[in-house]
Amino acid sequence: MSFPRVGVIGAGQLARMMAVPANDLGLDFKVFAAIPNDSAAQVAHFVLGDYSNVESVLAFAKECDVLTFEHELVPQSVIKALEAAGVKVYPRSESFTYSQDKLEMRKKIAELNLPNPKWQKYDGGKPQLEFPLIAKLPAGGYDGRGVFVIQTPSELAELHKKTGTLLLEEKLAFDYEIAVMVARSPHNQAATWPATLTIQSDGICTSTVTPIPDITDSLSAKVQAAALEIALGISLVGVMAVEMFIIGENFYINELALRPHNSGHWSIEGSETSQFEQHLRAILDLPLGSTAMRSKYAVMGNVLGGEKSDMYRPYLHLMARTPGLKFHQYGKEVKPGRKIGHVTMCGENLLQLQQEVAHAVDYMNGVIDE
Amino acid sequence: MSFPRVGVIGAGQLARMMAVPANDLGLDFKVFAAIPNDSAAQVAHFVLGDYSNVESVLAFAKECDVLTFEHELVPQSVIKALEAAGVKVYPRSESFTYSQDKLEMRKKIAELNLPNPKWQKYDGGKPQLEFPLIAKLPAGGYDGRGVFVIQTPSELAELHKKTGTLLLEEKLAFDYEIAVMVARSPHNQAATWPATLTIQSDGICTSTVTPIPDITDSLSAKVQAAALEIALGISLVGVMAVEMFIIGENFYINELALRPHNSGHWSIEGSETSQFEQHLRAILDLPLGSTAMRSKYAVMGNVLGGEKSDMYRPYLHLMARTPGLKFHQYGKEVKPGRKIGHVTMCGENLLQLQQEVAHAVDYMNGVIDE
Repeated sequence: MSFPRVGVIGAGQLARMMAVPANDLGLDFKVFAAIPNDSAAQVAHFVLGDYSNVESVLAFAKECDVLTFEHELVPQSVIKALEAAGVKVYPRSESFTYSQDKLEMRKKIAELNLPNPKWQKYDGGKPQLEFPLIAKLPAGGYDGRGVFVIQTPSELAELHKKTGTLLLEEKLAFDYEIAVMVARSPHNQAATWPATLTIQSDGICTSTVTPIPDITDSLSAKVQAAALEIALGISLVGVMAVEMFIIGENFYINELALRPHNSGHWSIEGSETSQFEQHLRAILDLPLGSTAMRSKYAVMGNVLGGEKSDMYRPYLHLMARTPGLKFHQYGKEVKPGRKIGHVTMCGENLLQLQQEVAHAVDYMNGVIDE
Repeated sequence: MSFPRVGVIGAGQLARMMAVPANDLGLDFKVFAAIPNDSAAQVAHFVLGDYSNVESVLAFAKECDVLTFEHELVPQSVIKALEAAGVKVYPRSESFTYSQDKLEMRKKIAELNLPNPKWQKYDGGKPQLEFPLIAKLPAGGYDGRGVFVIQTPSELAELHKKTGTLLLEEKLAFDYEIAVMVARSPHNQAATWPATLTIQSDGICTSTVTPIPDITDSLSAKVQAAALEIALGISLVGVMAVEMFIIGENFYINELALRPHNSGHWSIEGSETSQFEQHLRAILDLPLGSTAMRSKYAVMGNVLGGEKSDMYRPYLHLMARTPGLKFHQYGKEVKPGRKIGHVTMCGENLLQLQQEVAHAVDYMNGVIDE
């Protein structure tokens, strides 16, 4: 028994952040990148290849003891081919179904007796749900892509003509959105972190607060229990985000993301075990780490590409202003609206943390200049 | 202005741990390694070469915006050649003198009116100090190497015959040993962390406790002030460990180490800014980060090579037993007594932290097996 090699299919920022605990734990870590300038390839050893090419991924798998992937674009057929070849790849294809196919996800949540919004599979005709409603492509959407607010029957008909089968969901007038990160290992050990308030703008998460301010103990326990039930129900191995809508003391499952997730970035500084370390522990079937908070609150803000193309110079101002701010740059080219990094700040004074994080994010992307 | 490339001469565990904040900050990071299996070369992009070869180091420097080094073996002549060629290299050769030449260090401490043990340069004859005394090679020693406890005049004569010029120091009956980590930037910003209790065995640090339990506020302030004065006095750029002996409320400067140091490893989890991140900020002349503690105590234990050659299997037991324990493996071959990793645990209950860290270290190196 010696330190295993973990291979990650994909080399974006999630793989980049996974490289850190891999380094600490002494794992041999390699990413399967498209180009040498991919976010994770900049900082870790890599192999170049195309994740949709089975032969190429299989050749990479031969060099590794365990494989995982950091995005949801890897075709099911590739994951199944890896499994058929005896490769340890996590999450498993059967679990991944519930992330790649939103209709399957809705069925599974119903089967687990957990709260879905009202939903239906839609193949044309008059919908059972009232307008306005939400229409989703069953596969392929994230960050608000593939999700449509539909106001009228004609809008729905038009969309359906373009897309084919849709998942329709009631448009909930929710109070706020949350995410519960959960990890589970093949050994059937599971753990959650305190639930995270996710603040969205145009379908993209802009900031998070963990734990959720003023959440009742009872709701907090219920949403964590639901995340654990789903992890068990879909035989998760690895880390998953369970996104939920909250109305009063009720929650509704929104989406599943079977990977370390933006909603869990706060855990790098805010928790004794980050989601990235936990993901590695889970896929290696190592005992999971403590998910205790390291401070009362952790606030994370996404740095979205704006007018500024230089993300280094702002350090001079921001580090001097806020010595407790922690920076994460993904090494990605700045494009408007693109997630190019995030900042996190931990402490006791929530208002101050939120102000400093908001200031930093606005300063980084050029919305404010002092 | 864009993200600079930092080059590190040397690719041991210090460079490996420096790769983590370099990754987070979005820096371009490259190590100058001897072999591809060097600790840091395993996890970061590297160039192979010999650090004592000026041409080879200069060629590496051409690829980098700022150079630093992670061990004290780089010859002064190489650092001076880099400086002469206009390379930004930190710490500067003039500062490095006080780490490489212990006689120069003693003179400088005296010049700063800070407390030295009684000392003398020794070139033979009857020493001014009483026996037993400490004799040190002026250059090249660390981890207790190059340091000798001398009981008799004939022992001293014999050693001197072999080594030439020695630094002699009184053998202090100290209460305990500490280290103060300090960082300073070219901009003349400086910061210390709370002082660290360093527990040694056979001249090698086995564990640390930060902050020092039961230290008086006055002594705590005095030792931090002394570290800041030395940093200024030697024009430090980067991070330095100031090792001291404590007797009652008095301190005596023992050694300087001009680099991130074993005494500061606790800061990875225990402080808002780790010594590795601070070193990068300092050499890049970025504002320094907060050195606030993230928990009441941080306890670090060094994993020294023992009977066990497999350092991965112990994870199964230790992670299950102690979910809050954080592991750092350096990817080095296990050799008896060699530092091959460390563990850290943070929390409020010092006794429990010390017990868990001691258990983990003993279990890793095979002293105990459950």
